[in-house]
Amino acid sequence: MKGISILGSTGSIGCNTLQVIEHLGDLRVVALGAGRNMEKFAVQIERFEPELVSVDDEACAERLERELHRLNAQVPKIDLNSKGLEAVATHADAEIVVSAAVGAVGFVPTLRAIEAGKRIALANKETLVMAGELMTAAAEKSGAEILPVDSEHNAIHQCLKGETRREVRRLILTASGGPFRDWSKEEIAEATRQEALNHPNWKMGEKITIDSATLMNKGLEVIEARWLFGFDADEISVVVHPQSVVHSMVEMVDGSIIAQLGVTDMKHAIQYALTYPDRRENCLPPLDLAQLSELTFEEPDNDRFPCLDLAYEALRRGGTTPAALNAANEVAVAAFLEGRIRLPDIARLNRSVIDAHESNDAHDLDTVLEADRAARAAAEQFILSSVRQGRPQTV
Amino acid sequence: MKGISILGSTGSIGCNTLQVIEHLGDLRVVALGAGRNMEKFAVQIERFEPELVSVDDEACAERLERELHRLNAQVPKIDLNSKGLEAVATHADAEIVVSAAVGAVGFVPTLRAIEAGKRIALANKETLVMAGELMTAAAEKSGAEILPVDSEHNAIHQCLKGETRREVRRLILTASGGPFRDWSKEEIAEATRQEALNHPNWKMGEKITIDSATLMNKGLEVIEARWLFGFDADEISVVVHPQSVVHSMVEMVDGSIIAQLGVTDMKHAIQYALTYPDRRENCLPPLDLAQLSELTFEEPDNDRFPCLDLAYEALRRGGTTPAALNAANEVAVAAFLEGRIRLPDIARLNRSVIDAHESNDAHDLDTVLEADRAARAAAEQFILSSVRQGRPQTV
Repeated sequence: MKGISILGSTGSIGCNTLQVIEHLGDLRVVALGAGRNMEKFAVQIERFEPELVSVDDEACAERLERELHRLNAQVPKIDLNSKGLEAVATHADAEIVVSAAVGAVGFVPTLRAIEAGKRIALANKETLVMAGELMTAAAEKSGAEILPVDSEHNAIHQCLKGETRREVRRLILTASGGPFRDWSKEEIAEATRQEALNHPNWKMGEKITIDSATLMNKGLEVIEARWLFGFDADEISVVVHPQSVVHSMVEMVDGSIIAQLGVTDMKHAIQYALTYPDRRENCLPPLDLAQLSELTFEEPDNDRFPCLDLAYEALRRGGTTPAALNAANEVAVAAFLEGRIRLPDIARLNRSVIDAHESNDAHDLDTVLEADRAARAAAEQFILSSVRQGRPQTV
Repeated sequence: MKGISILGSTGSIGCNTLQVIEHLGDLRVVALGAGRNMEKFAVQIERFEPELVSVDDEACAERLERELHRLNAQVPKIDLNSKGLEAVATHADAEIVVSAAVGAVGFVPTLRAIEAGKRIALANKETLVMAGELMTAAAEKSGAEILPVDSEHNAIHQCLKGETRREVRRLILTASGGPFRDWSKEEIAEATRQEALNHPNWKMGEKITIDSATLMNKGLEVIEARWLFGFDADEISVVVHPQSVVHSMVEMVDGSIIAQLGVTDMKHAIQYALTYPDRRENCLPPLDLAQLSELTFEEPDNDRFPCLDLAYEALRRGGTTPAALNAANEVAVAAFLEGRIRLPDIARLNRSVIDAHESNDAHDLDTVLEADRAARAAAEQFILSSVRQGRPQTV
């Protein structure tokens, strides 16, 4: 049986991946990495019996051991923090590594898995946003395959099957438009945490759900697409498609558009990445086209959702700018979720950080990590100085 | 330069093919066959200078010569009737044969082209409807490639690129629903010739436009798809999609649907068939998704449009039944266009003929042609006996 490791197994993608593994029945979970939800993690470990697991710190490890004892489960080898996650990512028996740790934490472990020549089922888009050049160069060197797990890039991967690069005119990422698609700029300014977390079509983690509400998620996906498929910013378009039935499209040089449609369940893309190049039956209901009332498409509105254009700008500037944008955005989203800033402040903070960022070539890990660190500090500074100006809720 | 022959060059597909050839600039027209429009044919001959042409009869040949003299154009070798069309189809310098003669007349010439190992750009769906088994067996033997030119099968050909047969769950043909999609059964019964010829999305010849109005066209396409792609009746679905933007789809075993979208211009599919496996820029405007208001899908209504199910039934019965249905339908459509029967009579006539038809294996040409002949006779008989009963307009 093929071995598989999961970085971020207690998150949304991680849990879905384990369901897909149960359905497929011919993959062996060899290593798992999780953050802080030790109760859920213990249940997963009891069920899948990995040889190695990784948690954030010693306190987590102790909680995990207690939970496992409570379940009468065998305790596997437990490693800690990023080194532990790297061990999970490079486990000798793992042929496939699912990179689903949220945010920048999965970055180095994913790079190590790529260097080790694993197949990467990539849900952690920050990896390619921060250091697409570095990652794709490493993949080329090691022969690692990177298969996208988010629905849009997975759709594009499917649409590109059998086509050659020079025959493709552009990639067309679809965006649901998020919960605020129909809201005015003024209404968006007052949006609450709860409203922003209420995604119309997809059940996802909190960070990506907020990114969907600001369209930053689509911007990060544009950058990710650039590295996954080798297209320039000008060759990647975004169209708002509120029903999320068409997961993305590819326009060919002859004007033909190839689209992938499906149910809005991440298990589809996850299974595709695990079984590729084969397709296998999955546990999802088929899409009933005749039951769809309608599919609509519209241009994204940059005035109400400026984060998308920010991402295009960062991609065009290149170097470490996308890494800086990604880091700034992580800090901004966390601050929004903590009630420290309002939704439109996310774009303002991101704009401020990338405008001040001095871009460098992103050829090596240290440069990228330094850009990430500096951008986070600048973002925190932005929030603090706004708070000092007495505008904690509006910046 | 690659040589190309066209069967049916003055029809809608033929004229579009010549436009595509002009656009591509690297194909040489070596032979053309046309029916009765000698004025248009002469202009085509003057422009493309084929070595050989074929017309229906001696009278057409004389008219054609007169037209060519009037244009001061060189007169090529002119052959007559079906033998002439076979000569066009098998011209030694033709690597590609566009089979676009309307109805059964293109049948034998297309078979000869297949036997000669040509690439067939197939617009004449009757060829596969009448004798799919015979045609595909001949293609397998000679190595001839059959590339579909109608938009639905062309779409499916594109969607199947890079996929393997066993990973495909079903083909989904889209149907515009035709001009009577929203009409009641009673209204359809009173539809005029002009109303039936008023297709909402596609500019096509008269026969196929009437077939679109009755949904028989979609039925014939189901049979055609069976032979082009090797799927059973149960693996081919039809969904009504009034906007004709999604040209057809393929559902994979993992529930993923791959769709091809494009403008409603036959030049797209024609060029695809001529340049395959390459895609090249064409002369069509791109599809602007954001300008589409909406795409909708619905189940076909068999009560108002019974011809679709008739085709499924003929396909399931197999043997010569599809050939009989096709022949009956040609007679019925001609009778409708001549004002001899009403629109719903087309389905009644077809039903009557295939119910009376004694199906044989369709392994050889003579059996198929005999089934075609017998069905035509039965269809004429049906019309005559209806007329004798004093119901010329309602049968």
